Amino acid sequence: MFETAELNRKTSKEEYDSAEPGLRTALLASQERLKTADFSVIVVIGGVDGAGKGETVNLLHEWMDARHLDTHAFGSPSDEERERPPFWRFWRMLPAKGRIGIFFGSWYTDPIIQRVYGETTKAELEPALQRIQGFEKMLVDDGTLIIKWWFHLSKKAQQKRLKALASDPDTRWRVTKQDWKHFKLYDKFRRVSERTLRETSTGEAPWLVIEGTDKRYRSLTAARDLLDRITQRLAGPAAAPAARKPTRVKQDPHTILDTLDLSQQLTDKKYERELEQLQGRLNGLWRQAKADGLSAVLVFEGWDAAGKGGAIRRITPALDARDYQVISVAAPTDEEKARHYLWRFWRHLARAGRVTIFDRSWYGRVLVERVEGFAREDEWRRAYAEINQFEEQLAEHGIVLLKYWLHIDADEQLRRFKAREKITFKQYKITDEDYRNRAKTHDYELAANEMIGRTTTEYAPWVLVEANDKRHARIKILQALCARLEKA
Amino acid sequence: MFETAELNRKTSKEEYDSAEPGLRTALLASQERLKTADFSVIVVIGGVDGAGKGETVNLLHEWMDARHLDTHAFGSPSDEERERPPFWRFWRMLPAKGRIGIFFGSWYTDPIIQRVYGETTKAELEPALQRIQGFEKMLVDDGTLIIKWWFHLSKKAQQKRLKALASDPDTRWRVTKQDWKHFKLYDKFRRVSERTLRETSTGEAPWLVIEGTDKRYRSLTAARDLLDRITQRLAGPAAAPAARKPTRVKQDPHTILDTLDLSQQLTDKKYERELEQLQGRLNGLWRQAKADGLSAVLVFEGWDAAGKGGAIRRITPALDARDYQVISVAAPTDEEKARHYLWRFWRHLARAGRVTIFDRSWYGRVLVERVEGFAREDEWRRAYAEINQFEEQLAEHGIVLLKYWLHIDADEQLRRFKAREKITFKQYKITDEDYRNRAKTHDYELAANEMIGRTTTEYAPWVLVEANDKRHARIKILQALCARLEKA
Repeated sequence: MFETAELNRKTSKEEYDSAEPGLRTALLASQERLKTADFSVIVVIGGVDGAGKGETVNLLHEWMDARHLDTHAFGSPSDEERERPPFWRFWRMLPAKGRIGIFFGSWYTDPIIQRVYGETTKAELEPALQRIQGFEKMLVDDGTLIIKWWFHLSKKAQQKRLKALASDPDTRWRVTKQDWKHFKLYDKFRRVSERTLRETSTGEAPWLVIEGTDKRYRSLTAARDLLDRITQRLAGPAAAPAARKPTRVKQDPHTILDTLDLSQQLTDKKYERELEQLQGRLNGLWRQAKADGLSAVLVFEGWDAAGKGGAIRRITPALDARDYQVISVAAPTDEEKARHYLWRFWRHLARAGRVTIFDRSWYGRVLVERVEGFAREDEWRRAYAEINQFEEQLAEHGIVLLKYWLHIDADEQLRRFKAREKITFKQYKITDEDYRNRAKTHDYELAANEMIGRTTTEYAPWVLVEANDKRHARIKILQALCARLEKA
Repeated sequence: MFETAELNRKTSKEEYDSAEPGLRTALLASQERLKTADFSVIVVIGGVDGAGKGETVNLLHEWMDARHLDTHAFGSPSDEERERPPFWRFWRMLPAKGRIGIFFGSWYTDPIIQRVYGETTKAELEPALQRIQGFEKMLVDDGTLIIKWWFHLSKKAQQKRLKALASDPDTRWRVTKQDWKHFKLYDKFRRVSERTLRETSTGEAPWLVIEGTDKRYRSLTAARDLLDRITQRLAGPAAAPAARKPTRVKQDPHTILDTLDLSQQLTDKKYERELEQLQGRLNGLWRQAKADGLSAVLVFEGWDAAGKGGAIRRITPALDARDYQVISVAAPTDEEKARHYLWRFWRHLARAGRVTIFDRSWYGRVLVERVEGFAREDEWRRAYAEINQFEEQLAEHGIVLLKYWLHIDADEQLRRFKAREKITFKQYKITDEDYRNRAKTHDYELAANEMIGRTTTEYAPWVLVEANDKRHARIKILQALCARLEKA
């Protein structure tokens, strides 16, 4: 793979000088058009030390409108980053639509370096690369243009370049001890990189290997690729057909939700006793979990009036107000709309020692957005896999993740709507929309069943809660939480 | 001050039970109305340990719609927080308009605790309190409703409560060693708190001292105060008159900008030599500064076509692309519009070891927003003090702050506009708006002069740059930066 980038290619000064003005104009023009486009651009910079990564990025800043480039370098993670899953630091830096984000050091750095230094085995590289593929696919599917450049130098060329830099007092600072350390590992680095590039060079997000020996050659190659890719993308069909018609679905007679026994009940007396006991237990368990640096994410989904809020309010008294946050998922802000739909959930992930409770969640994508047609069919269809990948990362990071589906039947729902209208301080909870949604019960039911089927994973199973009896539901929810914390 | 909160006030169960439903309904209703209001609410929670701070916040979460409460607890700062000025962690958590942010532990915690533990002197408390006053005034001026509750217990009551909590196995965990340590310092804590509350109880953001002995009493008192304050604010006049007419200003014949000698020039040869030398010097200086954990903020303001971008591009090649970010100040996002105008600059403050270059900045408030009437007169008039406070915090944190004003005369500007139109890759830089702005030169000039006069401080002086000759300007800018870094 790298052989084609060891041909000692050069660009003459004449060719460079004649190409530069046109290229700059075109790049600026493409950047202007990009500003109002419906996608963002991510440029991933990787490669051999001394192959001109920094210089190329500097050059792009000089040639283009630097004010619309977001360049992010990733060194050691901060403590806020370490307390979240590894990809959090990349999610938080994703550029908004219309902008170019340059990732200098990226999600490729750790897997490669860890393998080169022998911190991970050959077998462990595989899942890391698959995660990257999944991440990039998710962004590409969402419309993001991903450009990946690998700046290459042959072993000899790297040695020569490092020596040259080190011998000049003006550039000596640029050669660090780590550079020489890396150089000694050149062969291994090359092998690991080659495998990484091969496996992550997908149709939508291919790697471009750029020979780094000649400054003029690599500058023109990178700049031209950037221009070509953006121009091509701008010229291509708009992200997707605008039609977002609600998908009508047929009712499947047998569903997992139908199997729930909604007649389960608890007496007031038993409920009060168990509630008190469980809250006490939860309190103790959470204190221990917090001391161990755990964090938890609780997801509440279910029918309108299924008692999500009430269940949440039976959990929170057992926690210190400092330790939790209830996130209500409402309409996204424009900063959120300008990015992948999961971005707004990633940004809410809390630090260690905290519980984040989502009252509705990322599952809106495959529930309300699907049924109401806010998401296109291809969007909600791929969301199952995207959600599973997201939750896998939470679980791997040791986050206690619980997903509750609160289930009530249509009769019970109607009874609750009517009851709410009579209690003054609950009136605000009932709107015409709630009644409108009832008309689509069948669609929602099928969406819920499919969601549960496709997002029940061993690391994040759904807890299905029979919620016709609120007391039963609340106790079951608390029991599941305590059991899960005990295991953790 | 605290004597009035040691009266052992109690609320009977009957009174509480009869008040609760009405209070809850009213609180929820006020929250509903708040959602679409043009201001945010901040509730600051302070007070004696064991006086029911956490329980009150829990209760509010139970009574109100927890999904529209943002509760933030502030423990030790993270490394990302430590690398920015102390108020950064509070700025980042400011609620958007329509929401309630509960600050559990706040900007009051450190000044009080540090004084109680003798880490600061009596005299040092004063500037800390003044900073708080300035911060709160800024938010209040912007429309924020600030509610501050101090939960108080007499020494005897605190001791009793801590003992009671500690003797019950269910609540023992809530009493930490630190609580007892604090208790031993009760008298000192009381003195420092009293002074703090006295000096920060302003007309717009007064403290309410709440007696914490009786749970029912303190709950009702807090909830009623919250309701009253929000209701009052909702009933009051809208934030401010909507009229945002541009303020026409008369031209002052003698200005500081007039004193600049715009004829200063450099020959090409001298320029090239000095540029190279200065870039090398800057490179070395920055590497050292970075190693020392410094960060820098460079602000570029000046006339259209004064050469801000070109000057920035003479600085960046001396830096590693990983170390800087050029922030272009464009239209705010809706998340930014929902907060104080300085929020969007606070959020861009970078971590240690980085240079943040603002191509236009917070000074837009007193330049374009003033002249074009985007800000009301009272808004831009108070902005001078707000900006000075902001910059003082940057300077105190050790951030190298440089503010450049690039000055050209009207003839030179016109020449450059015409020239830009001829260079294809610079055409995008010239729009009709640029010509329109020229018509308001006099207004802009006066605004610029007033800005320079009112925001030239010893910690953040303006560097006035004669920019008719680009070579002279760039060299002067680099020289000032190098000199400033050398000093630091």
